[in-house]
Amino acid sequence: MGRVSAFIVNIGTELLIGRTINGNLQWLGSRIYSLGGEVLGSITVHDRKNQIAFALKCALNSEADFIITTGGLGPTYDDITMEAIAEWLGKKLVLNENALSFMIKLRKPMSEESKKAYEKMATLPEGSTPLFNYVGAAPGAMLLIGEKRLFVLPGVPREMKDMFERYVEPFIGHSVSRGIVTRIEEIFEAQISPLITKLTKSFPSVYVKSHPSMEYGKSVLRIEAWTQDSSVDLMEIYRELENFVKAHGGKINLENQT
Amino acid sequence: MGRVSAFIVNIGTELLIGRTINGNLQWLGSRIYSLGGEVLGSITVHDRKNQIAFALKCALNSEADFIITTGGLGPTYDDITMEAIAEWLGKKLVLNENALSFMIKLRKPMSEESKKAYEKMATLPEGSTPLFNYVGAAPGAMLLIGEKRLFVLPGVPREMKDMFERYVEPFIGHSVSRGIVTRIEEIFEAQISPLITKLTKSFPSVYVKSHPSMEYGKSVLRIEAWTQDSSVDLMEIYRELENFVKAHGGKINLENQT
Repeated sequence: MGRVSAFIVNIGTELLIGRTINGNLQWLGSRIYSLGGEVLGSITVHDRKNQIAFALKCALNSEADFIITTGGLGPTYDDITMEAIAEWLGKKLVLNENALSFMIKLRKPMSEESKKAYEKMATLPEGSTPLFNYVGAAPGAMLLIGEKRLFVLPGVPREMKDMFERYVEPFIGHSVSRGIVTRIEEIFEAQISPLITKLTKSFPSVYVKSHPSMEYGKSVLRIEAWTQDSSVDLMEIYRELENFVKAHGGKINLENQT
Repeated sequence: MGRVSAFIVNIGTELLIGRTINGNLQWLGSRIYSLGGEVLGSITVHDRKNQIAFALKCALNSEADFIITTGGLGPTYDDITMEAIAEWLGKKLVLNENALSFMIKLRKPMSEESKKAYEKMATLPEGSTPLFNYVGAAPGAMLLIGEKRLFVLPGVPREMKDMFERYVEPFIGHSVSRGIVTRIEEIFEAQISPLITKLTKSFPSVYVKSHPSMEYGKSVLRIEAWTQDSSVDLMEIYRELENFVKAHGGKINLENQT
């Protein structure tokens, strides 16, 4: 009953030599968090086959529910993500006619050279579901690795975002996960932790978690409660927290509710 | 004779929920690259013990020469990096008197509470070399894990940067590694690769590598040559490249020399 969690694999030498800051991770982290999910971890590697395989292995060994890769889907020969994935999975690369005809309809290649580039981009690991790109050219792919879903997205931010919203968001299931975030001052986690333990027992389908932090030198405690169980009223939990905090002289407010 | 390579472990929930963009990775990537080294990969995880252990295991399994962690060294109890490292290595946590007296001299704690916070921060995994913090409070640590060096740095950017320059840079050995970066247009990697093969044979102590990329729709090829061998004149390599590129109608210039 925890949050749906993702592991992100960002592929691109430019991210490791300081040429580009990893805005994709920030965007994905913030977006997935606001949908009630969580990025469990992230790994960044060069556009090199052995390192992409290394990163995918780390991602697969993590406890995340699904994996997203970004980058390395373009037409130039240093874009090797699809090839690296196929090799790592022991699958063939095959031209996906649906992905190719979608690209051709949308963008109409002019020269023999660009046709070849399109064919390279539409060549996906066998067994992939192609993810059409409405904003750029290179298609993405969705693959199942055992029980884990792997979404292969482009690195160009506007293409990545469009494809995330189109193909990954429905999988996270925004509509079924609801949560509240409370912000508490002047109460420490150690004080409130017996109540949290009690709440997790009374509401077994709810995931309750506390996050202490410092804000401008003041210690703040956030308690979150998430559930996919439509029969639970999360405001009941909020009221229990509120009673406790007020009885102990602290301040509480509802920071976020989805 | 390759570049010295680092694996970066960034620890902090704020990086995975989109609250903070990973500027530390960009800075480290750019700085290590300009010193002639390379960030081989990077992993970002939450301030949770099992995930810090997971990240360290990935880093240790990589081919990088050394590991840097950032984050989780502060006084609050969600700062658990030292504890997680000690547990992962099966070592005890011990109060480091040198680190503590350095902090006390520099910052003079006022209350009993702040003294306790200082003691928490000066408690390091057994066998650590403390890295004094001249900019903030929390000390870092250096540990040897087998043959790999682990630098444990703070997450606050200005503290991290100061400690990197003080303790990690000398290890990378700026002065012994020299390199050139050439920028080539209108020649493709496939054309020039026989010359690169020839150069790696004629100069066995030099690491020669090509990086193709796209810049504003134009394809650009960079060829880098790095060496720690003081008897090599890298400009000889540059001249061979220049002769080849000019003979084939391309453009070349020396983009960087260290």
